[in-house]
Amino acid sequence: MPSYTPPVRDVRFVLEQVVGLSAHAQVEGFANATPDTVDAVLEEGGRFVAEVLFPLNQVGDQHGCTRAEDGSVTTPPGFKEAYRQFVESGWGTLAAPEAFGGQGMPHVVSTAFQEFMISANMAFAMYPGLAHGAIAALVAKGNPEQQATYLPKMVSGEWGGTMNLTEPQCGTDLGLIRTKAEPQADGSYRITGTKIFISAGEHDLTDNIIHLVLAKTPGAPDSSRGISLFVVPKVLVNADGSLGARNAVTCGSIEHKMGIHGNSTCVLNYDGATGWLVGEEMKGLAAMFIMMNAARLGVGLQGLAVAETAYQNAVHYARDRRQGRALTGPAEPGEKADTLMVHPDVRRMLMEAKAWTEGLRALCLWGALQVDLEHKAGTEVERQMAGDLIGLLTPVIKGVGTDKGYEVATNAQQVYGGHGYIQEWGMEQYVRDARIAMIYEGTNGVQAMDLVGRKLAQNGGRAVQAFFQIVTEELALAKTVPSTADFAARLERALGDLQAATMWFMANGMKNPDHVGAGAVSYMHLMGLVATGLMWLRMATAAARMQAAGEGDAAFLDAKLVTARFFAERILPDAGALRRKIEGGADAVMALPESMFLAA
Amino acid sequence: MPSYTPPVRDVRFVLEQVVGLSAHAQVEGFANATPDTVDAVLEEGGRFVAEVLFPLNQVGDQHGCTRAEDGSVTTPPGFKEAYRQFVESGWGTLAAPEAFGGQGMPHVVSTAFQEFMISANMAFAMYPGLAHGAIAALVAKGNPEQQATYLPKMVSGEWGGTMNLTEPQCGTDLGLIRTKAEPQADGSYRITGTKIFISAGEHDLTDNIIHLVLAKTPGAPDSSRGISLFVVPKVLVNADGSLGARNAVTCGSIEHKMGIHGNSTCVLNYDGATGWLVGEEMKGLAAMFIMMNAARLGVGLQGLAVAETAYQNAVHYARDRRQGRALTGPAEPGEKADTLMVHPDVRRMLMEAKAWTEGLRALCLWGALQVDLEHKAGTEVERQMAGDLIGLLTPVIKGVGTDKGYEVATNAQQVYGGHGYIQEWGMEQYVRDARIAMIYEGTNGVQAMDLVGRKLAQNGGRAVQAFFQIVTEELALAKTVPSTADFAARLERALGDLQAATMWFMANGMKNPDHVGAGAVSYMHLMGLVATGLMWLRMATAAARMQAAGEGDAAFLDAKLVTARFFAERILPDAGALRRKIEGGADAVMALPESMFLAA
Repeated sequence: MPSYTPPVRDVRFVLEQVVGLSAHAQVEGFANATPDTVDAVLEEGGRFVAEVLFPLNQVGDQHGCTRAEDGSVTTPPGFKEAYRQFVESGWGTLAAPEAFGGQGMPHVVSTAFQEFMISANMAFAMYPGLAHGAIAALVAKGNPEQQATYLPKMVSGEWGGTMNLTEPQCGTDLGLIRTKAEPQADGSYRITGTKIFISAGEHDLTDNIIHLVLAKTPGAPDSSRGISLFVVPKVLVNADGSLGARNAVTCGSIEHKMGIHGNSTCVLNYDGATGWLVGEEMKGLAAMFIMMNAARLGVGLQGLAVAETAYQNAVHYARDRRQGRALTGPAEPGEKADTLMVHPDVRRMLMEAKAWTEGLRALCLWGALQVDLEHKAGTEVERQMAGDLIGLLTPVIKGVGTDKGYEVATNAQQVYGGHGYIQEWGMEQYVRDARIAMIYEGTNGVQAMDLVGRKLAQNGGRAVQAFFQIVTEELALAKTVPSTADFAARLERALGDLQAATMWFMANGMKNPDHVGAGAVSYMHLMGLVATGLMWLRMATAAARMQAAGEGDAAFLDAKLVTARFFAERILPDAGALRRKIEGGADAVMALPESMFLAA
Repeated sequence: MPSYTPPVRDVRFVLEQVVGLSAHAQVEGFANATPDTVDAVLEEGGRFVAEVLFPLNQVGDQHGCTRAEDGSVTTPPGFKEAYRQFVESGWGTLAAPEAFGGQGMPHVVSTAFQEFMISANMAFAMYPGLAHGAIAALVAKGNPEQQATYLPKMVSGEWGGTMNLTEPQCGTDLGLIRTKAEPQADGSYRITGTKIFISAGEHDLTDNIIHLVLAKTPGAPDSSRGISLFVVPKVLVNADGSLGARNAVTCGSIEHKMGIHGNSTCVLNYDGATGWLVGEEMKGLAAMFIMMNAARLGVGLQGLAVAETAYQNAVHYARDRRQGRALTGPAEPGEKADTLMVHPDVRRMLMEAKAWTEGLRALCLWGALQVDLEHKAGTEVERQMAGDLIGLLTPVIKGVGTDKGYEVATNAQQVYGGHGYIQEWGMEQYVRDARIAMIYEGTNGVQAMDLVGRKLAQNGGRAVQAFFQIVTEELALAKTVPSTADFAARLERALGDLQAATMWFMANGMKNPDHVGAGAVSYMHLMGLVATGLMWLRMATAAARMQAAGEGDAAFLDAKLVTARFFAERILPDAGALRRKIEGGADAVMALPESMFLAA
């Protein structure tokens, strides 16, 4: 049976040595995040998810959600009770604003806990996860009455929340939305239309679900500039805050999916449901992006988090399973066979997993810090810098985090051999669950286009130049230290590839934008190598410094240095290939006539 | 709903232009394979699988197999009738020896049909597929009585066949086998033990199933040198050929798997079952490898075949689905959105799929030709050369074919966006089905070790030198032709990387065999790039020659040249990264103490 242990020590190392949590004590909310408080969150939160949520992970996969004739949805056995405990213990309120009943902790601390929760049970974590996006939109764009009506109960977890974008004819291209919002005399709107793929769209965990819905008002232009955002509660809320009549939104069906069976993915039918405009009319896209950016970082975290659980189990299996002998001669001659751990290719898969999960953890937490700083740093310069960095890296964290998460989960399954393919061992579920993260909240191809088509050029390339400068400065320091000089030289080469690819886009994108589109995913992965490489540079630098000072656990710090070396020698070489693919341009990608793809 | 059209035209092109089928007319059995006969096989066989087997593919996935209390197993609805038609139409007998009722066609022609069958329904195709391995072992190692008793009905498909290797404690390491074979006075053996993961181990398609079982005789050494192969029929066969008593082998359970639900994967309990030695005692490993080598080529074909179906559907979806606009401006201004086909990254995924499926098809068929030539070529020199090449490339075809098959299936699913994750669209089944091919018949890591640890060094490196020479000679020609010169230059660079990596292994493997183990999978993929590159070189060369001569369909030949260019510019660059990873050696891979993999 699979197991999961929250990687508390590694998170602590990253928060102190990479994120520099204590160095930001002057930032609003960070004073709350004392080492003792953070330890308590990690230890207690980790225990909660491991003991309460993880045992429901396979249960959720096997039972899935059930829709009744009346459109109500029942979550898997145990989910409702676990959700009650989750709400009571307040794990969902860590980073929410104190004004609405949250604990006002830094986002970066909440993100560390989120990773544990997703690792334990991704499908379960999506119920509060989706609500967080809706909360973010209402905090930013809701009017005071809307905030007072919905936010306290959404923050506490008493009510759920969803994001309603997709329609049958409309996925990435939100200009195609058909859902209509007709204004009423009382200031409300009547919402009519069909939304699909709505995660946590209907369930039995909460008394109410607050849907945030993109729709078009009469006469709005037929493009993404014509969409508005509405708040549409499943159950209408009376003036005194009590629950009133059922609104005209129903779950028409739930999807049968490859994975995340424990989360209800709904078709929601809006049949003249009552909703209220959030923010300004036809400014829905901007409001949506507030939800979406938060969701994309959360999805990147899903990639890492599922990979972590898969990796942990692969390590256990590799240490238990005996098969074959070490190439260098029997490691345990007294046994009939050595463990899988002696085999270089098994090690290779485990080291790739370790290098990516720890590197992506650092990247996700460092990214979460930028979200904090973007809103709360003391100076405009700091806020702008943080906003630039997280804007640039959000598609990288989402796209690379989930592509690599899937790859790690697939390799972890591979370590199990035939047993990895059998449901009861649990490994194939991680692969199926991890798969969706490459698709939703914008496919990874869409992330890559966001990166190369929007983020690179914004403000004259300010963000990417700032990123290059950070890497360059930290490399310059690391090159002077013997223990990190080789790593720095290899990362510098990858940075050179990334800079060359960036220049290639600048030189060729104006001639033909397809040159940029054809290299977008390769570029996203190239930037992911450099960004994750920067995290490994920081971890290696910190480990070397601590060892020299006689601080910390020597074995743990050694492991960081070994894994950094693996990242440099066995993962960073992909940078050169990615650059060459990018520089191949669009010609070979676009040349084939449509009719010749199928030449049967 | 998904669809499938057998790529008959492409197979025909490969058989003529890459395999050179008609140039081998003097080889035994090849005279039967006239262009008309081959066309009939491809057209009629393709129609059969598309009309009869493909409609059962999703049915099989959804229903799976059912085991009753008595151990009997029922296949999914429709399988039994389809199997009956399969047997009646004789599609399973194409390449079987005429002496046992087969049609004596070249293996390469049968392989072309196999691809279609797997594409249509992989789980179904495994029933006759497993029997083929058992047939091969009996043809090579069975005594005349065994051959007369079993082969005619196995060849006709009236009886099934299986391969029984794996036990709970014994996967790759066959020395750990515990199943016992006790000799009886009548020359038979009593077989006792538990075998797991037995594909097609029990089902209702045939009246009898002939199990080929690895077991140990009393006193045999506790290693793979101590194993023997036995034939153990599910139902004992009377002297007159009629069915007798039920043998003491029963299905204890069937596995719940990630995919290939339509195939029954069984735990088989042998409880003093009656069996007979096949070949010599304690020579079971050699006999097993006859089954295994055939099976590995078949599994490599599975990678390609599932990828083909996934790719075809992704093309249909990309042509139908409208979302967003071309980067170069609206392609169809009269529509509300352009099709997915205009987006460079969608094209990139489809072109990768096309380049790999067509390249792997050529490689599988060329490999199948080597199997024919190994046994039937006119001279010993030709037979040895063919044996060398297929020995070298079997792990490459299996390992790279299935890794790339999974990658293509995953990308094809990605083209569908959210719909790719929903069961009814059918795409996620291809990913789940394709996944097993990377695991069974030796995981891809085991394939890589077979390549670098056995095949490279055999006969003083004769096989790999022959392979290098073939590539070098064809490159020298292609470099002189303007239309293939650029492709040849790029392939030459990849060949240089492969040769350098080979030298690196030679220089460093003696010092520490882990240096070879740590780079094994990268090396397998590097050789896969060069071998598939050789196939694209042949296809491009043929296309250019035919165009110059005014032969063939210009659009089809253009597509070959465009796809070859894509392979060279967008796929071959991986060769450099793989070489650098290999040259990184084992140090960083093996350095981490076991206890530090989990440092929570």
